[in-house]
Amino acid sequence: MVNEAALLAARHDKEKISMAEFEDAKDKILMGVERKSLLISEDEKKLIAYHECGHVLVGKSLPGMDPIHKVTIIPRGMALGLTQALPIDERRTYSKTYCMNQLAFMLGGRAAEKLVLGDLSTGAGNDIEKATKLARKMVCEWGMSDRLGPLTYGEKQEEIFLGREIGMHRDYSEATAREIDEEIKRIVDESKNRAESIVKRNLVKLKRLAQTLLDKEILSGEEIDNILKNDRQKKDRKSSK
Amino acid sequence: MVNEAALLAARHDKEKISMAEFEDAKDKILMGVERKSLLISEDEKKLIAYHECGHVLVGKSLPGMDPIHKVTIIPRGMALGLTQALPIDERRTYSKTYCMNQLAFMLGGRAAEKLVLGDLSTGAGNDIEKATKLARKMVCEWGMSDRLGPLTYGEKQEEIFLGREIGMHRDYSEATAREIDEEIKRIVDESKNRAESIVKRNLVKLKRLAQTLLDKEILSGEEIDNILKNDRQKKDRKSSK
Amino acid sequence: MVNEAALLAARHDKEKISMAEFEDAKDKILMGVERKSLLISEDEKKLIAYHECGHVLVGKSLPGMDPIHKVTIIPRGMALGLTQALPIDERRTYSKTYCMNQLAFMLGGRAAEKLVLGDLSTGAGNDIEKATKLARKMVCEWGMSDRLGPLTYGEKQEEIFLGREIGMHRDYSEATAREIDEEIKRIVDESKNRAESIVKRNLVKLKRLAQTLLDKEILSGEEIDNILKNDRQKKDRKSSK
Amino acid sequence: MVNEAALLAARHDKEKISMAEFEDAKDKILMGVERKSLLISEDEKKLIAYHECGHVLVGKSLPGMDPIHKVTIIPRGMALGLTQALPIDERRTYSKTYCMNQLAFMLGGRAAEKLVLGDLSTGAGNDIEKATKLARKMVCEWGMSDRLGPLTYGEKQEEIFLGREIGMHRDYSEATAREIDEEIKRIVDESKNRAESIVKRNLVKLKRLAQTLLDKEILSGEEIDNILKNDRQKKDRKSSK
Amino acid sequence: MVNEAALLAARHDKEKISMAEFEDAKDKILMGVERKSLLISEDEKKLIAYHECGHVLVGKSLPGMDPIHKVTIIPRGMALGLTQALPIDERRTYSKTYCMNQLAFMLGGRAAEKLVLGDLSTGAGNDIEKATKLARKMVCEWGMSDRLGPLTYGEKQEEIFLGREIGMHRDYSEATAREIDEEIKRIVDESKNRAESIVKRNLVKLKRLAQTLLDKEILSGEEIDNILKNDRQKKDRKSSK
Amino acid sequence: MVNEAALLAARHDKEKISMAEFEDAKDKILMGVERKSLLISEDEKKLIAYHECGHVLVGKSLPGMDPIHKVTIIPRGMALGLTQALPIDERRTYSKTYCMNQLAFMLGGRAAEKLVLGDLSTGAGNDIEKATKLARKMVCEWGMSDRLGPLTYGEKQEEIFLGREIGMHRDYSEATAREIDEEIKRIVDESKNRAESIVKRNLVKLKRLAQTLLDKEILSGEEIDNILKNDRQKKDRKSSK
Repeated sequence: MVNEAALLAARHDKEKISMAEFEDAKDKILMGVERKSLLISEDEKKLIAYHECGHVLVGKSLPGMDPIHKVTIIPRGMALGLTQALPIDERRTYSKTYCMNQLAFMLGGRAAEKLVLGDLSTGAGNDIEKATKLARKMVCEWGMSDRLGPLTYGEKQEEIFLGREIGMHRDYSEATAREIDEEIKRIVDESKNRAESIVKRNLVKLKRLAQTLLDKEILSGEEIDNILKNDRQKKDRKSSK
Repeated sequence: MVNEAALLAARHDKEKISMAEFEDAKDKILMGVERKSLLISEDEKKLIAYHECGHVLVGKSLPGMDPIHKVTIIPRGMALGLTQALPIDERRTYSKTYCMNQLAFMLGGRAAEKLVLGDLSTGAGNDIEKATKLARKMVCEWGMSDRLGPLTYGEKQEEIFLGREIGMHRDYSEATAREIDEEIKRIVDESKNRAESIVKRNLVKLKRLAQTLLDKEILSGEEIDNILKNDRQKKDRKSSK
Repeated sequence: MVNEAALLAARHDKEKISMAEFEDAKDKILMGVERKSLLISEDEKKLIAYHECGHVLVGKSLPGMDPIHKVTIIPRGMALGLTQALPIDERRTYSKTYCMNQLAFMLGGRAAEKLVLGDLSTGAGNDIEKATKLARKMVCEWGMSDRLGPLTYGEKQEEIFLGREIGMHRDYSEATAREIDEEIKRIVDESKNRAESIVKRNLVKLKRLAQTLLDKEILSGEEIDNILKNDRQKKDRKSSK
Repeated sequence: MVNEAALLAARHDKEKISMAEFEDAKDKILMGVERKSLLISEDEKKLIAYHECGHVLVGKSLPGMDPIHKVTIIPRGMALGLTQALPIDERRTYSKTYCMNQLAFMLGGRAAEKLVLGDLSTGAGNDIEKATKLARKMVCEWGMSDRLGPLTYGEKQEEIFLGREIGMHRDYSEATAREIDEEIKRIVDESKNRAESIVKRNLVKLKRLAQTLLDKEILSGEEIDNILKNDRQKKDRKSSK
Repeated sequence: MVNEAALLAARHDKEKISMAEFEDAKDKILMGVERKSLLISEDEKKLIAYHECGHVLVGKSLPGMDPIHKVTIIPRGMALGLTQALPIDERRTYSKTYCMNQLAFMLGGRAAEKLVLGDLSTGAGNDIEKATKLARKMVCEWGMSDRLGPLTYGEKQEEIFLGREIGMHRDYSEATAREIDEEIKRIVDESKNRAESIVKRNLVKLKRLAQTLLDKEILSGEEIDNILKNDRQKKDRKSSK
Repeated sequence: MVNEAALLAARHDKEKISMAEFEDAKDKILMGVERKSLLISEDEKKLIAYHECGHVLVGKSLPGMDPIHKVTIIPRGMALGLTQALPIDERRTYSKTYCMNQLAFMLGGRAAEKLVLGDLSTGAGNDIEKATKLARKMVCEWGMSDRLGPLTYGEKQEEIFLGREIGMHRDYSEATAREIDEEIKRIVDESKNRAESIVKRNLVKLKRLAQTLLDKEILSGEEIDNILKNDRQKKDRKSSK
């Protein structure tokens, strides 16, 4: 990353590598190059902004979440927008509680689309995929479902051809497969409901956040905190009148 | 495309590349070379004309659809006819509403065949395939079915042999597979009914459109608009008598 | 084909290529070389004659069928007999009505064996296979079953190894598979009944046709028409007495 | 075969090739070299003799069967005994009646073991396999089951790797698979019952045949006919007393 | 084997090859080299001795079994102990009765562990595997189950890749698969009960056998016969008092 | 291992190889190199300590277990902590009782997490996998389930491609697969309950053990014994007051 930052500084004719270069280098590695040339309609920008702010709102509302580092609607690589949450320390084990909060966070964008714009979009496809995978691991690898108990379901398949892993091999019955389906769906549905109820309770905050994001295209963690705080202060002032 | 247009202009001994060359070049790239030599019976031509005008009619009747650019019954490549709808701006995310309208549009050709000619034909096979795929994605990738919720069903299979993707790998139970089947069928059936009811309500327009298309073999978006407008004016005049 | 006809003319020491050479050349390409050396018992010849005339009879009895060009019991390539129907014009789309008539035509041979000889034979295996494939396509690719609707069932599998298509990949549930089975069986059974009822109503014609075919070994479309007409005239004369 | 017969004659220092050499040559090609060195216990010889004579008896009792050419208990190649039935003329189509008789013939050996020795043996494994395959073809390829109708079940799989056919690919539902299983079992069970009832009615003949075969180790078609005739004459004489 | 015996004689500085060398050579080929260095705890030795004597006891109690040649608890290759039964003559066909007795013999070791030591062990895994395979062949290949009849279930799969057989390919329905499972389980359970009841009735004999085997580590067929005879004589003497 | 110990001694500039070097060498081979550089938060350390002490407690509470050699929370290779149990003598056969105790031991870590910290974590994933595999072997390979009996379920698949074993091939029906699932789950659930009840009864001991482990990061078998003894003495003193 230092290397990448040095390259960026060189390209900008700077003599020192400032924090800005480091920030850019990190983004480039994590998210791909900014695609400023890409033309996006106002409608689609609004959709993306609400989607990202849905993530932010749920991420700020649940305890023990990784802090939101920044949110942006500048397209990078394949992503049209991004909410970036960075962990404070490196963990290697995650609790069931942490996993459940992550699921709500992942589904926060879709909840915002649905409640503010009254429609669903294909943009939530990636969040849905990640949520389904996480819920599946909770049930099938980590024994976090009371119904299915502390058992592993499915066997990691060895890399048979040319050194590739093919995925999980099913080693259980149809009836068990159905129980796993129901349990994964129950967990994801519960998380969807949590995300939607958080968004519903914070519609004013969401709109202010999304409006600011549409103006500035990028918000740091600090800026997000200020917007949410102001919002609270105004609310406090209003209610104190 | 500019290259292709230049080639066409050269072949036609023109000194400048006109819009006609550009139009031809675009068609050639999108749809293959015109096959004027292909002999088609009058019966089959009529079938194709009604099929294409069924698409046009549904496309013009639903809000938020991409504008119809042109419709033709001149065979090109594998297609015997074509209705071309071009989006105004490039979108990257699509709403559930947009998807539902697309499905009705896709099934508009079959609806016209069934209602005007009283028979089904193999010609709708391709539309049916596209509609089924879209409905499957809505249910299995984009979480657009309330019944199945915001989950991904099936896992994209890695390219195991020689760098090819094999398709989706089923990671759910038989009972869930059945729910997915029912949901996809419900969505397509609903779209079929919408398409048929639009065609039924506009039989006069459909016949005028198809008749003109049989005469001219190709209609631009503007011409289509004029035919539909005239139709409306006549209707207005009639009812005002 | 012209090439093939020229070769045949050369072999027969002719200076011009007559229609006979063309007819032979076409047969050779479509059906393989005549195998006059093959010894066939009288019993088997009778079976083959009735089988082929069953096809002819159904083909002549249904509207919109391609005209019967010729019928023969001279073995060619793998086939022991052949009924050849040639389309008047090249079509690229086929109606549901046309498909249903084709199915009855395919099962006409088996119907004749069953009703005249009172036994079934392995000789109908190929007809059965073609009928099953056509009925499957009607249900699974062309949306011609009301029960299963305008959906595609199964996904054409990409050519994974060495550029070969493997066939259809099943992307639906067991319960749907059962519905498809029932629908295909219903369509084929209906066609079998149509074929059998046509044969039953025309037993006299069938016997006259088969007897003439056993004598001449090959009948042209014109000869077939004459036999069927005579049959009718005799009947008319009889009833006018 | 002539070649093989010439070699045998040369080996036996004969100047002409007699019918004996031809007979041996045919057997060698069809059944492998005689294995006189193989030691077989008296118990096992008796089992084999009754098994083979069970085939002979059923083969002689049903109409339209290919004539029994010879029966032997001299081991050849993998087979410990053999009943050879040779068709009179080459057929290319087989009737359902012929197939049903073949099934009873195949199960005649097992019926004899069961009724005379009161036990089953592994020796019937090969007959069972052939009977199951034939019954499957009757149901799945030749449309000879009323219940399953004139449809093909299963699709011959193309040779995917290295030019080999892999067998049938299942293209039907579980419920249909069950119907096929039941129909194949019904046909084989019916044939088993026919074979057993023929053996039961002819126990005296069977014992005489088997006894003679144990003595001579090989019986020609003519010898078989004589034994069965004598049996009948004695019976006639007895009943005429 | 003669070669191997000669080598052993040479290694032991003998001038002639005695029966001892032949015996050792046969064991080496059949069972691998003795592993005298392997340290086994007294507990485990006791388990192995009772397991092997369980086999011996059942083998001596059933009619028509191959004679027990020797039993040993000296580890050889992968096996920790071994009961060796050698057939008197080479058979190529086996009766159902013989198969049923073999199954009880295979499960004799487990029966002894369970009844004497009151626990099961992983040591019976290999016997269980062999018994399951034999029972499956009886049902699926040799038609020895009345319920499933004289049919073959499953098709031997051709060697697709690199000349290897992959095993059986399933060509029947789920419902039939369940019937096969139930029938295989019924046969094995019946054999387990036979083995356990034989062991229960002969506990005194079993303990004497096992004790002698623990002392001598190897017993010949003759020694086994003497121990069982003595046991009977004592019993006779006791009961005659 | 001696080699590895010699290398370690050389690296530490020692002239002799002490027991410490041997201990380190053994750990390196069994568990990978110590990763002292890895930073772990206090929260995560506490989780790991309780998890490992859960294993220790269950391992010390059940009869016939291999003695605990040491427990550590110093990360090594992929493992964040480790409880090491070394067998006294090498066994080759294991009893059902031993297997059941192993299962409880494996689930002891998860039980401690759940009861002390009130949450589950991903850290138990590996234990769960091992427990499921062991329970599956008990049911499917070693005949240790009364319900499923002394049968093998599944067939080890031959190494088809490039000499790799692919795992078990399913050769039984869905209904049997469901019985196997239920039986494996019953065995694991029973073991989970045993582990949890042991932890519940020994919460005071567990906390003392975990606290000491957090301080020292590594405890030998002897140190563990002392802590558990002291605990008992204190308890005894308290109750004697």
